[in-house]
Amino acid sequence: MNIGRILVGKPLQTKDLIHQSISKPVGLAVFASDALSSTAYATEEILIILAFTGATWASGGNILGLSIPIAIAIAILLVIVTISYRQTIFAYPGGGGAYIVARDNLGEIPAQVAGAALLTDYILTVAVSISAGVAQITSAFPGLRPLRVEIAVAVIIFITVINLRGLKESGRIFAVPTYFFLVSTFLMLGVGLVRFLSGSLPTVVDVEAMHHVVEPLGIFLILRAFSSGCTALTGIEAISNGITAFKEPRSHNAATTLTWMSGILIALFLGITLLANQIHAVPSETETVISQLGRTIYGEGSIFYLLTLAGTALILLMAANTSYADFPRLAALQAADGFLPRQLTYRGSRLVFSWGIVLLAAAASLLVIVADARTTALIPLYAVGVFMSFTISQAGMVVRFNRISKLKPGEIGHSLETPLTYDPTWRHKLVISAIGAVCTFVVMCVFAITKFTSGAWFVVIVIPTLVFIFFRIHRHYKDVAINLSRESTASVRTQPVRTVILVDNVHAETVRMVNFAKSLGHRWTAIHVGVSPEKAEEAKTKWQSRIGEGELVIIPSPYRQLIEPIRDYIEQLQAEEPDCFVHVIMGHLAMENYWEQALHQNSALIFNLALAQMEDVAVTTVPYQIHHIHRQPKAVVEPQAPTEQN
Amino acid sequence: MNIGRILVGKPLQTKDLIHQSISKPVGLAVFASDALSSTAYATEEILIILAFTGATWASGGNILGLSIPIAIAIAILLVIVTISYRQTIFAYPGGGGAYIVARDNLGEIPAQVAGAALLTDYILTVAVSISAGVAQITSAFPGLRPLRVEIAVAVIIFITVINLRGLKESGRIFAVPTYFFLVSTFLMLGVGLVRFLSGSLPTVVDVEAMHHVVEPLGIFLILRAFSSGCTALTGIEAISNGITAFKEPRSHNAATTLTWMSGILIALFLGITLLANQIHAVPSETETVISQLGRTIYGEGSIFYLLTLAGTALILLMAANTSYADFPRLAALQAADGFLPRQLTYRGSRLVFSWGIVLLAAAASLLVIVADARTTALIPLYAVGVFMSFTISQAGMVVRFNRISKLKPGEIGHSLETPLTYDPTWRHKLVISAIGAVCTFVVMCVFAITKFTSGAWFVVIVIPTLVFIFFRIHRHYKDVAINLSRESTASVRTQPVRTVILVDNVHAETVRMVNFAKSLGHRWTAIHVGVSPEKAEEAKTKWQSRIGEGELVIIPSPYRQLIEPIRDYIEQLQAEEPDCFVHVIMGHLAMENYWEQALHQNSALIFNLALAQMEDVAVTTVPYQIHHIHRQPKAVVEPQAPTEQN
Repeated sequence: MNIGRILVGKPLQTKDLIHQSISKPVGLAVFASDALSSTAYATEEILIILAFTGATWASGGNILGLSIPIAIAIAILLVIVTISYRQTIFAYPGGGGAYIVARDNLGEIPAQVAGAALLTDYILTVAVSISAGVAQITSAFPGLRPLRVEIAVAVIIFITVINLRGLKESGRIFAVPTYFFLVSTFLMLGVGLVRFLSGSLPTVVDVEAMHHVVEPLGIFLILRAFSSGCTALTGIEAISNGITAFKEPRSHNAATTLTWMSGILIALFLGITLLANQIHAVPSETETVISQLGRTIYGEGSIFYLLTLAGTALILLMAANTSYADFPRLAALQAADGFLPRQLTYRGSRLVFSWGIVLLAAAASLLVIVADARTTALIPLYAVGVFMSFTISQAGMVVRFNRISKLKPGEIGHSLETPLTYDPTWRHKLVISAIGAVCTFVVMCVFAITKFTSGAWFVVIVIPTLVFIFFRIHRHYKDVAINLSRESTASVRTQPVRTVILVDNVHAETVRMVNFAKSLGHRWTAIHVGVSPEKAEEAKTKWQSRIGEGELVIIPSPYRQLIEPIRDYIEQLQAEEPDCFVHVIMGHLAMENYWEQALHQNSALIFNLALAQMEDVAVTTVPYQIHHIHRQPKAVVEPQAPTEQN
Repeated sequence: MNIGRILVGKPLQTKDLIHQSISKPVGLAVFASDALSSTAYATEEILIILAFTGATWASGGNILGLSIPIAIAIAILLVIVTISYRQTIFAYPGGGGAYIVARDNLGEIPAQVAGAALLTDYILTVAVSISAGVAQITSAFPGLRPLRVEIAVAVIIFITVINLRGLKESGRIFAVPTYFFLVSTFLMLGVGLVRFLSGSLPTVVDVEAMHHVVEPLGIFLILRAFSSGCTALTGIEAISNGITAFKEPRSHNAATTLTWMSGILIALFLGITLLANQIHAVPSETETVISQLGRTIYGEGSIFYLLTLAGTALILLMAANTSYADFPRLAALQAADGFLPRQLTYRGSRLVFSWGIVLLAAAASLLVIVADARTTALIPLYAVGVFMSFTISQAGMVVRFNRISKLKPGEIGHSLETPLTYDPTWRHKLVISAIGAVCTFVVMCVFAITKFTSGAWFVVIVIPTLVFIFFRIHRHYKDVAINLSRESTASVRTQPVRTVILVDNVHAETVRMVNFAKSLGHRWTAIHVGVSPEKAEEAKTKWQSRIGEGELVIIPSPYRQLIEPIRDYIEQLQAEEPDCFVHVIMGHLAMENYWEQALHQNSALIFNLALAQMEDVAVTTVPYQIHHIHRQPKAVVEPQAPTEQN
């Protein structure tokens, strides 16, 4: 317990919740790391696909050079999505993630689809970012390559602990690496640009190129390269999900942070792609493009090369943190709507949604282990879900603006979240959202088709499965609610009570239990389940001598079962006296710690669960505390070990 | 539940226990498979060590030929141990494993050391045998090599299920492979011998030899080769542990089976070693010596070659079954003595010690996974424990015969197990046991020293750790026994009872719970832990309107804890009325299946455990069954999802 307290920190009061909010620069650090960090692998993923043509810089530089127009196309898409998302942030100051927008405008099914897509992608964000971050480390220190899975899992555990401490502190911790990354990367791009303009930028040497099957260049391959590069857009939605974490005025601060973030992202992505072309960077299993860039721009072994790699590794490792902010928040929203287990809505001692954090960490660790911490293996799973949620979110905004278009000035339209108000600029905004929706939908289709065989099929199966599970959970909670409300006509009255005392062995505990049962003042019977005839006989004799009141009834159990004979006995009692409430009382040896508790059969807990299926039966456990005693000299006390079942 | 029933079979009555006993031929199949199967790797392990000298058949056949005198030395040791163990079997007709012999003659500590050594070795037997068996399969089908860990774990699961069904049936199932192995291996040795005598036996070709560091030949290396070969003796004690599984007269049948087994074992071991020398067998990572023998004797691709390998693979896979018979039995013995958790003494629905079987399977699977299913990696861990238990057992017999020597004719000596009777041949028997004890002790030391750095150190740590844990467990059970007997002077009397009703939300369930509490007829208070002020207010209002009796007390919980505020409230009650018994009543939503139950917080179980630490507090759960209801048309019933904590 104390180790947990040291790691996680002291409990926070519920009223402290409001203070857990962050400024724009900290918000950029917390929410932008995912989006910015994708520049570390987006260029590389484009080059990997283009290299499938067998082109090298010597033979077909023009083909690898296609990465520049592809990057520009992606930058344009990013501008469209950013403008569209700014509208969402202002329309939903309480948090405008795809889930909320879809629930408000499109209905339950699209909302759950968006929820499933986002939850999947948050898990993938953690797995991809951490795998890519570890790849930067192993580019600088190739000796660590065999340990990459272990390093990745260790980092996941580290980030999990920080997040269990709470958002504000993790914001402060993560501000440093984000800004360190920005400074070191812009420095590298600046130096590279100066060397390029002065004509002194060399091309990269000593890279072990990837080997693969050669495919012809065609529109399909270019679309695959484009969709691989679109991973640069992942994470852009993080701010719209996390508006409530910002200081007031929330919408304004969040929208400004989003614009900053997109500007920085475009500059980084285009800069890296351009310079990677200039140095003739080569996709490689053993060295990342960022490492090739740093090595070429600063020269082999420069301290600045190592600083750049460190910055990139840090932002990638910290990018995972975005998901730690958003996954638990979204899961709590869906749980509050009854589509996920309600436990996900409970805030832990540090006011964070602890269950969501732990769930995310477990799922991401599993993915990292299965994919052997290789980014390229995870990329095909990634981004389908992101673009699905982009599409749903923007389609929702189109519906919203369409409804606004029908309002007269001063009229207020109904909405679950923010009331609809008259807005003369609706036409302009609807067009922006519609363009965004169409573009992201097209990209999603391109992605799903071109990446289908290399892994996107998995996501295509997972998302509908999750949606199915969400609706099963929802149906369960609805059933329970109907049950609880329907029978509430039951009147307050008293029923006759029959007490049944379960006796295993007769000792001090039994006396205490019988005392309690007698104190209740109802008709009682003591029973013993006779698994072993000798033990039953012994219990009966001891009962006579120690309790001496009533009779201990032995119920035979030839198959050594404990629950079934008791169930039969209770049913018999209920048949004799139909309206009676059966009260089962049993002892429970309570130990001082878990390992000692585990040495006993703890049948009280088992009975509690098993008898819960019977109507009009209540189960009472009378605990008896076993304390450590001062050791007696061995010769004096050497009693027979007890043979209790408790 | 039904899948479990199909796999494990229908429950058996306790009175069927006596019928679960086996004949000599079946006993040989069940208990001898471990000992016999070790011939599949013992010769190979000797050759691996001798090959460390860098000797090949071309350069230094004389060095590899040392395997023959080493094998003869091991065969002599085997004869000594067999004669010694026959004495034990007659002295302990109720089962004469090292644990019982040590407990009876040497005391608690040697007995627990023997227990720890044997339990460790049973686990290793499963891991080694299954790894070696899978190696035979991959010798014949090299394509399966990458799947060897998966195959090994699948086989462990299969044997586990068979053993959960019960011993008699597993005996019948395992008789076939044991006899198949004996026929196929003796046939191979016979054909090999005929070809050798007729001068037509070639040497083996196309073997990929192992590469290793070259070491000089010396006494240390020869001792290492000898100790590796001593793995041939493992499993010889299985019969003495399992005497009670034999038909009457048990001792006689068991001793005869032991003699058969040893004779067969010596014939196989010497035959394989001799022929392996003739064909110039080479230790290899990819092909076992048995496979090389079969291939050379029968010719490449012969059906008899495949049958021999199949027989060897089967006996090895089945050898693991010996441990499945002995591990749970020994664990139950130790648990009955209070040195292991008492749960290990309970017989499952099929009369087997299910917990022991499952524990063994889990530990062996872990070892196989960690050692990557490579036999050579496991061998150094193996056999230290076996020889330790041999030594303890035979030392115990020496003490026993020494006590017998002091008896007069007709006098009966005290013993926990079998009474000591006068025996004029005691001197002769004592000498045999002493020779056995000294020989096995020397081998154990040789083993521990020569294999220390390659893995035996692990066993040297594990056995004392286990012994320490056993004594901690023992101390705990003794403490509990003292506690329960000491306070049994408590008198039968009645105490005042205060009822506390825990209310989360007010609905149909609450009414039922209040009904029960009122029915008990004591002073009662209803309390609500106010984690959320809004919910607390709602509960209070609903209480007034639906229950309308008494008052719902709100206990604030600013840190969102549930247990601590209740604990404080109970302590307050107990301070007000010192002798009172506090009876806490809470509701529990009981679902129809586990996944639905997991969607609720199940705080009743948590409270039960948490409040068990308080004296004079009993906890009652009033279950409320939620049944699946007929779905209503959506428009009619759309209640708010409940926000219960149960």
